[in-house]
Amino acid sequence: MTVNEKIFALRQQMLKEGFDAYIMPSSDPHQSEYVADHFKSRQWLSGFMGSMGYLVVTQQHAGVWTDSRYFLQCETEIHGTDFVMHKQGIQGAPEHIDWLVQTLAPNSRVGCDGTLFAIGQVRAMQKTFSAKNIFLNTDIDAINAIWLDRPTLPTAPIFEHELVFAGKTRTEKLEDIRHKMRENGATLHLVTTIDDIGWTLNLRGSDVDCNPVFLSYLVIGLERCELFVNVSKLPETLKNTLNTEGVIVHAYEGIEAFLSKLKATDCIAVDGSNINYKLYSTIKQAKIIEIETFSIIMKAIKNETEQAWIRQVMVKDGVALLKAFRWLSKKLSLNETVTEYEFSAMIAQFRSDQAHYFGESFDAIVGYNGNGAIIHYKPAVKTSAVIEPNGILLVDSGGQYADGTTDITRTISLDGKPKQEIIDDFTAVLKGHIAIAELIFPQGTKGIQMDILARMYLWKASLNYGHGTGHGVGFFMNVHEPPQGIAPALNSRGTTPHQLGMLTSNEPGMYREGSYGIRIENLILVVPHNTNTYGTFYKFETVTLFPLDRSLINKKMLTKSEITWINDYHQRVFSSLEPHLDTAEKTWLKQECKKI
Amino acid sequence: MTVNEKIFALRQQMLKEGFDAYIMPSSDPHQSEYVADHFKSRQWLSGFMGSMGYLVVTQQHAGVWTDSRYFLQCETEIHGTDFVMHKQGIQGAPEHIDWLVQTLAPNSRVGCDGTLFAIGQVRAMQKTFSAKNIFLNTDIDAINAIWLDRPTLPTAPIFEHELVFAGKTRTEKLEDIRHKMRENGATLHLVTTIDDIGWTLNLRGSDVDCNPVFLSYLVIGLERCELFVNVSKLPETLKNTLNTEGVIVHAYEGIEAFLSKLKATDCIAVDGSNINYKLYSTIKQAKIIEIETFSIIMKAIKNETEQAWIRQVMVKDGVALLKAFRWLSKKLSLNETVTEYEFSAMIAQFRSDQAHYFGESFDAIVGYNGNGAIIHYKPAVKTSAVIEPNGILLVDSGGQYADGTTDITRTISLDGKPKQEIIDDFTAVLKGHIAIAELIFPQGTKGIQMDILARMYLWKASLNYGHGTGHGVGFFMNVHEPPQGIAPALNSRGTTPHQLGMLTSNEPGMYREGSYGIRIENLILVVPHNTNTYGTFYKFETVTLFPLDRSLINKKMLTKSEITWINDYHQRVFSSLEPHLDTAEKTWLKQECKKI
Repeated sequence: MTVNEKIFALRQQMLKEGFDAYIMPSSDPHQSEYVADHFKSRQWLSGFMGSMGYLVVTQQHAGVWTDSRYFLQCETEIHGTDFVMHKQGIQGAPEHIDWLVQTLAPNSRVGCDGTLFAIGQVRAMQKTFSAKNIFLNTDIDAINAIWLDRPTLPTAPIFEHELVFAGKTRTEKLEDIRHKMRENGATLHLVTTIDDIGWTLNLRGSDVDCNPVFLSYLVIGLERCELFVNVSKLPETLKNTLNTEGVIVHAYEGIEAFLSKLKATDCIAVDGSNINYKLYSTIKQAKIIEIETFSIIMKAIKNETEQAWIRQVMVKDGVALLKAFRWLSKKLSLNETVTEYEFSAMIAQFRSDQAHYFGESFDAIVGYNGNGAIIHYKPAVKTSAVIEPNGILLVDSGGQYADGTTDITRTISLDGKPKQEIIDDFTAVLKGHIAIAELIFPQGTKGIQMDILARMYLWKASLNYGHGTGHGVGFFMNVHEPPQGIAPALNSRGTTPHQLGMLTSNEPGMYREGSYGIRIENLILVVPHNTNTYGTFYKFETVTLFPLDRSLINKKMLTKSEITWINDYHQRVFSSLEPHLDTAEKTWLKQECKKI
Repeated sequence: MTVNEKIFALRQQMLKEGFDAYIMPSSDPHQSEYVADHFKSRQWLSGFMGSMGYLVVTQQHAGVWTDSRYFLQCETEIHGTDFVMHKQGIQGAPEHIDWLVQTLAPNSRVGCDGTLFAIGQVRAMQKTFSAKNIFLNTDIDAINAIWLDRPTLPTAPIFEHELVFAGKTRTEKLEDIRHKMRENGATLHLVTTIDDIGWTLNLRGSDVDCNPVFLSYLVIGLERCELFVNVSKLPETLKNTLNTEGVIVHAYEGIEAFLSKLKATDCIAVDGSNINYKLYSTIKQAKIIEIETFSIIMKAIKNETEQAWIRQVMVKDGVALLKAFRWLSKKLSLNETVTEYEFSAMIAQFRSDQAHYFGESFDAIVGYNGNGAIIHYKPAVKTSAVIEPNGILLVDSGGQYADGTTDITRTISLDGKPKQEIIDDFTAVLKGHIAIAELIFPQGTKGIQMDILARMYLWKASLNYGHGTGHGVGFFMNVHEPPQGIAPALNSRGTTPHQLGMLTSNEPGMYREGSYGIRIENLILVVPHNTNTYGTFYKFETVTLFPLDRSLINKKMLTKSEITWINDYHQRVFSSLEPHLDTAEKTWLKQECKKI
């Protein structure tokens, strides 16, 4: 079926069921950012493959709402179909809802699949629609009927995340959560976000590409807890271990029946921002407390064991990248053809040689020249560009290791002779990156306060980048992990204070459409700095270890303090990676880490 | 009566009326920040004179909650009474409510005067209290019965703010508001904030010290509007003019009867963040739309006429300050005694020589050495310190002129030989001030994003200041004007985007308790910068014109760009003020504005 045939089929479904508009989000029933293939109905219908977008289809219009990270990609992917792109000002904002209110006649009927929307989203939609008497029906899965070759739910096995890495047993984690439950008067706590379930139980899976999670629901009681999961994914011994430790396993689909049977004496804590509407509606009798899932903040604060592993995993990841970039350099010097896709595969190859490697943490972005300006570019096997020995290359990749998750972006000159505009752009981005890296800040400081430091040098030249500056990063878990981040928006990434032990990316960029993209990304860990009468101050420790391309730096644009930062960082990169390298590699790294 | 006698009398009242706790805010029925003497019951009871604080009195405890601006002042003022200070983390935060919930037994009864709380505040209190079954009664004015010599309501006359200054007629302003009312489906709009009423109607009064406002309520209809005010304040001709223009005058107290008689066909727009609870409760039949008072954003965006006047008023204000500082310098050189209070009076004196002067825009803060560290220090006639010809002096003052409102802080060395610590602190504050002044930013940028620029150099040294970086400023109106500002908090000052024409203060500081205070404050106006594919960019124009003390600047701590900013600013100060000075003054200013 072509995209337009799919639109036609959906419109027929809408006519049959009597709806004027149908809304499709990008999520699964767990409000995941990245979802199993079974839930990629938005991608299936529109052909737009970016991680975030909403479709709205009426009889007259088929629209995709996405944000600036995906403008170029979306336009390319929907080209030739009846879909029209709408530019969202803010990531994930409900601007399609405003469009519907403006476009639809009063008393229109809008349909959606209530399992794919959080209760909070449904309430907001209902409130907005009610102003114009628009009716919202959340029981419509219009896609299942027309998506004939829909993939089944994933069945990959579930395994233990060893305590030596996790640093805390599931029993200890459950006790921390139960302490919060008691504080809030809850007898039960429903966890629907699958990264939280994996973290809490020290379990991992492979249900979603690059995210070591498994589809499940968890209900934590004060004494025991109930895990709802495809039971065949669990080895018998693991199932028994869990059972012994008070984690009772049930079928994945059993969650609805379980919730519907709760009694009036039960008091269940749920998170309105991620429990899906349909699940929420099954709770009939029990008292509901709406509160943020307790493990979100616990998981974000890396414990001492995790922090120690993170510092080590960065050495492995730096060594792997060094080998990959040297491989590329050799290929180019021999005039051999390398495509963006081939290079991304080689990066994964070199990572896989490292201990405890599990897989990549996201599809690598390898963007040659103009492709680098497509912010979430994913080079395809067949169509990706050939990397020539001139221009610049943006490489954003990361690994999943049992001892940590990495995410690093480097932009390199392929011939050591970059144009002045590229050098100046790179240096402005670098100044912003250093401003974040060097920041000392009082307890309570939020990402929305920090974000400007990464942008101010670009703003001075009337430039900007259309994405946030940083996201939280998991520990052998999702590479995008809530709640904290560095972003100019009044959302969780912007408004969560950075606490000791949180791990976040620092990744300002600069993109010239059709020409090139620049991004510099390291991960930063919050560590103590100082306490005095003016407060308690924290700072960031840059944990990622890989040199920056010195040929892209305009030293004249830098302050003394910025130059010192670069030289100190390169010194640290060299001394950390050097013990793991052969002689030729050491020589190469020494050159790359030379003082500017 | 002593403070402790007042506390005793209040506790007797509480016993009589059966309440376990009584809450007193700092506001009036209009949610004003600065209030007429009649409403200073919080000050009367506790003796704490700062602009912001909550009292909570139980039979066992009498507490004042205030924020870091007032910690030193409050401790001094409540010393020797039974009041205990509680340090609030965030300005105006309801932390006293949390304290009550923790302290009171379930089923306790809390009383307050519902006219002094916005409906939004009452809802939040009720929600918090309900968790512990604490009952809130909002009908208790426990103070009136015990405050025997309470001042009467003010009776100062109301007068026109001439169109030549205001730039827009009240009819035009009302039309703008009616446009918003129609957009939102409102047939009536209740305005309870008295600065909004004055701005909308181009009227001014003198009901509150330093704030040219008059107590009133305004109900704007689609055809006419109703002004509720003490009618004797209005000259007959003005009353007739208003009447002719569709502004019908009623007695101040008539508002409740008016609102209670609204019909079910009326749809009234009210602002939940400032309509008081009692007033809200009188609206029985009409449909209520809760929405921000429409004029708040209109008033904040200065029109072209206002902007032109602002640039001129700054010249007058700079000239007046120049004369005042030269007067002080001469006095000190002659070894004559000058107290902080006397100097504040002389500043007002020199301002009053300028055209269109109306009064000071707030009580000047003149803080010598350690007094400068008391952030909202107000020198008293009898007890203020003598300014010696050594150490440093912080002077924060402003004027109300028919052609604009000013607010400026300068910190000066009194002997030209400041200690190195003072110089380094001053320079760190100056670097922050310049970072804000030089900022170029895209449309939509909020104060919470900008705030860090003013603090980052202090944070680097583990220092900070306990107040926001900037507040909106009125035009011949309140010197603290919502909604925008520059602040690290998720409140209106932090979260409102800075739009073209907004006028804000830029006033970072640094305080060493018992030693000295430093603050550098200029007003900044948002003006256009550039538009390209990366967005529409704005910048700030620093409109305040007065030199910075060059002897307090450590040039070695400055970047080239910062040095250029200072020299350019001083050049502009000199060329702007020079035409209005005599020869000796010119010579003085030339010296002060010399290049660093």
